Amino acid sequence: MLFHVTMDVHVPHGCDPVRFEQLKAAEKARFQQLQRDGTWRHIWRVVGRYSNVSIFDVEDNAQLHDLLTSLPLYPFMEVKVTALCRHPSSLHDDDR
Amino acid sequence: MLFHVTMDVHVPHGCDPVRFEQLKAAEKARFQQLQRDGTWRHIWRVVGRYSNVSIFDVEDNAQLHDLLTSLPLYPFMEVKVTALCRHPSSLHDDDR
Amino acid sequence: MLFHVTMDVHVPHGCDPVRFEQLKAAEKARFQQLQRDGTWRHIWRVVGRYSNVSIFDVEDNAQLHDLLTSLPLYPFMEVKVTALCRHPSSLHDDDR
Amino acid sequence: MLFHVTMDVHVPHGCDPVRFEQLKAAEKARFQQLQRDGTWRHIWRVVGRYSNVSIFDVEDNAQLHDLLTSLPLYPFMEVKVTALCRHPSSLHDDDR
Amino acid sequence: MLFHVTMDVHVPHGCDPVRFEQLKAAEKARFQQLQRDGTWRHIWRVVGRYSNVSIFDVEDNAQLHDLLTSLPLYPFMEVKVTALCRHPSSLHDDDR
Amino acid sequence: MLFHVTMDVHVPHGCDPVRFEQLKAAEKARFQQLQRDGTWRHIWRVVGRYSNVSIFDVEDNAQLHDLLTSLPLYPFMEVKVTALCRHPSSLHDDDR
Amino acid sequence: MLFHVTMDVHVPHGCDPVRFEQLKAAEKARFQQLQRDGTWRHIWRVVGRYSNVSIFDVEDNAQLHDLLTSLPLYPFMEVKVTALCRHPSSLHDDDR
Amino acid sequence: MLFHVTMDVHVPHGCDPVRFEQLKAAEKARFQQLQRDGTWRHIWRVVGRYSNVSIFDVEDNAQLHDLLTSLPLYPFMEVKVTALCRHPSSLHDDDR
Amino acid sequence: MLFHVTMDVHVPHGCDPVRFEQLKAAEKARFQQLQRDGTWRHIWRVVGRYSNVSIFDVEDNAQLHDLLTSLPLYPFMEVKVTALCRHPSSLHDDDR
Amino acid sequence: MLFHVTMDVHVPHGCDPVRFEQLKAAEKARFQQLQRDGTWRHIWRVVGRYSNVSIFDVEDNAQLHDLLTSLPLYPFMEVKVTALCRHPSSLHDDDR
Repeated sequence: MLFHVTMDVHVPHGCDPVRFEQLKAAEKARFQQLQRDGTWRHIWRVVGRYSNVSIFDVEDNAQLHDLLTSLPLYPFMEVKVTALCRHPSSLHDDDR
Repeated sequence: MLFHVTMDVHVPHGCDPVRFEQLKAAEKARFQQLQRDGTWRHIWRVVGRYSNVSIFDVEDNAQLHDLLTSLPLYPFMEVKVTALCRHPSSLHDDDR
Repeated sequence: MLFHVTMDVHVPHGCDPVRFEQLKAAEKARFQQLQRDGTWRHIWRVVGRYSNVSIFDVEDNAQLHDLLTSLPLYPFMEVKVTALCRHPSSLHDDDR
Repeated sequence: MLFHVTMDVHVPHGCDPVRFEQLKAAEKARFQQLQRDGTWRHIWRVVGRYSNVSIFDVEDNAQLHDLLTSLPLYPFMEVKVTALCRHPSSLHDDDR
Repeated sequence: MLFHVTMDVHVPHGCDPVRFEQLKAAEKARFQQLQRDGTWRHIWRVVGRYSNVSIFDVEDNAQLHDLLTSLPLYPFMEVKVTALCRHPSSLHDDDR
Repeated sequence: MLFHVTMDVHVPHGCDPVRFEQLKAAEKARFQQLQRDGTWRHIWRVVGRYSNVSIFDVEDNAQLHDLLTSLPLYPFMEVKVTALCRHPSSLHDDDR
Repeated sequence: MLFHVTMDVHVPHGCDPVRFEQLKAAEKARFQQLQRDGTWRHIWRVVGRYSNVSIFDVEDNAQLHDLLTSLPLYPFMEVKVTALCRHPSSLHDDDR
Repeated sequence: MLFHVTMDVHVPHGCDPVRFEQLKAAEKARFQQLQRDGTWRHIWRVVGRYSNVSIFDVEDNAQLHDLLTSLPLYPFMEVKVTALCRHPSSLHDDDR
Repeated sequence: MLFHVTMDVHVPHGCDPVRFEQLKAAEKARFQQLQRDGTWRHIWRVVGRYSNVSIFDVEDNAQLHDLLTSLPLYPFMEVKVTALCRHPSSLHDDDR
Repeated sequence: MLFHVTMDVHVPHGCDPVRFEQLKAAEKARFQQLQRDGTWRHIWRVVGRYSNVSIFDVEDNAQLHDLLTSLPLYPFMEVKVTALCRHPSSLHDDDR
């Protein structure tokens, strides 16, 4: 099942930069694992912001919740989830 | 260049249903032409709403404006455009 | 899978009351069919408003979209969908 | 009487994690006591957020206020309360 | 039980003034009946607007819903309901 | 003259609890003095929130400003003021 | 007593222009009478909008409500009222 | 003096298309006259919307108000005005 | 030229009260100098809030920007500026 | 390609003023380099606020993202980006 997810990252002033870089590296590794699995299907940056727009393809709602809340940068994120479905006009059978 | 576009369709009460079906058919034909061209790269329905989330891949801002404002259902749409760019962590070279 | 759905009904001034009562009767029949099926799991009225809060238990996002957009009163509704999941603290195994 | 309650939890950066885990354990115990009593009738997680949607069945407004404001995590919550009532179309006599 | 209710009245342009005056008279009669019953405990006008702020004292949520949605001007109102309870600092035992 | 006032109290994390209890006690004493004077005519709690809805009956705008801004908890409050007037349909001559 | 009032005028499409000019002339006459009385103390136009910002000096809330709701263009206005008081730093004893 | 102006055009359904094209032609002629005068200094389209962002360079507030409210399409516009001033870091003496 | 300015002052918790009183005294002195000059033409307090509504009469946008951003309390203010112009119905030639 | 960018700067209380002045100097130098390049085509201050409105002329979305997020003051900015295109009525061939 497909979900549209926006993640806005807010770095608090005074945050330890070394610790934050570690979390970013962990976030990148976790993202790439999920991308390889086909779960984190798309990711794009929003121009001018520390935000992304992503498409997830998951088994169910619970899997999506677990994936999102266990992201290394989750404590710094404002997350919004929108349920999607395939568009009937699409010519691509596997457009996910 | 990539853009995230949301389109919310508002059908006014009293709208002629025959005319509206004609516009929907024209919209579908135009969409599929743009999908084949690779310009209208993705489209998904928003669950429970007469709305879609789309990703466009265009030459420039002007092309996107012309594509959107010439859609058959454009007079009934509320359109929001967000500029995107490729995410540096993505493993997919052509993730568009 | 569980979803939280709010439906706000807006009756336009000048709406034909006979036609609207027919739609309300069709809506009620459809609701009760879905309630018996276990799909429309809960419904409550919002005090003082022509709105309800509902919980749906569906196979996937597409089924929810089809159910909602085919409701007889759908053209008069503003619908909002929120994906839910079971709460880990709940003592009720089948709390849906 | 039935009420729809949303609780959004905001954990401030710099919060002592040991203290917070203690509060979460106390919150869980209190929740399960109220769930057994039938007062906290339903709880669901909102996907991707540290939030829940709940249905309370209480004697009156004052009981609901006392229950909510004495929750261990209440100082970290943004709470919204909406009064509900039974829907006349419901086939379930005890749908609460 | 006490509830805070705001009612904003929107008169559509083109509304039949004779019919509207009839509804206003019916609304006034209904209001005064409920005021005598002690159910519609307080009403005040909001300065400069066609709105009121009211306090209702009802048996339960369902009674409030029935009272509000059967008001003669209800189809022209935007209604907001907030659950209240007695303030513990109040010196007035019957402050309702 | 009558005014509708909402007061939302925000207790900052890390606030000294002893000092805050002192302010709450001072707030209660001040409230009861104004209630006895007839100036702070009504107060109700908003269910589930650290907020109240109040009705003030004052000589003029300046008196209301002085009363509100000198409350012991004022530095922690978000205050909203709405001017009211008597409703012409009210049967209670002294409904204030 | 002083009040800050904003008035946004919305002219519905299809409004009879002759009738509207009559209402505008009546509005102007009424405004100038109130300006001479000292009640409508200031008026300014908001640049680029059919809106004004005004300062009223009235006996009490009820007088302001009666003045505003009896304006000829009131049915076309969105009105917002804010209670003001004299600023203690002002050097002008009669700055109203 | 410089002002940032956004103009959102809303064409009501049922608007006479011949009349609207006449207004658009008149709008274009008026715009080009003001552009030649140097008053309407810049105009850009907002991608995907019937909106523009403009920079005006006027003598004073009153001139801007008169220019905007006399535009042929003004009755169909939502206009927002923001006062600007030259940025001290700019290297362009005449950057307007 | 006339501008409507609202200033909302937010005093952060933990702000040094001696320093803040010094800034308030400096703000008052600066205000009174500008009031004598005729630049800060009107000021009123918003009832119940640490906010004022002011009318400025300045040479141009740049002068207003310099005046506002150099106020002693500016770092604690949320400022909103609206361009005004004289109302054509006003009987007062110098109504500013 | 043209983009409209607003930048609101928020200086946290307690920010080291020496460090902040260094960042402002670096920001100014970077701005002037981009202005000379023709990339940061226009900048204006918003009156009364620590904000600017800018027009960028870039190769593509990715270049704009890189320019904005590498600005020395970026960690203190709230940035909003809107895609623009040339207006067909404009008489200036190079109006950018």
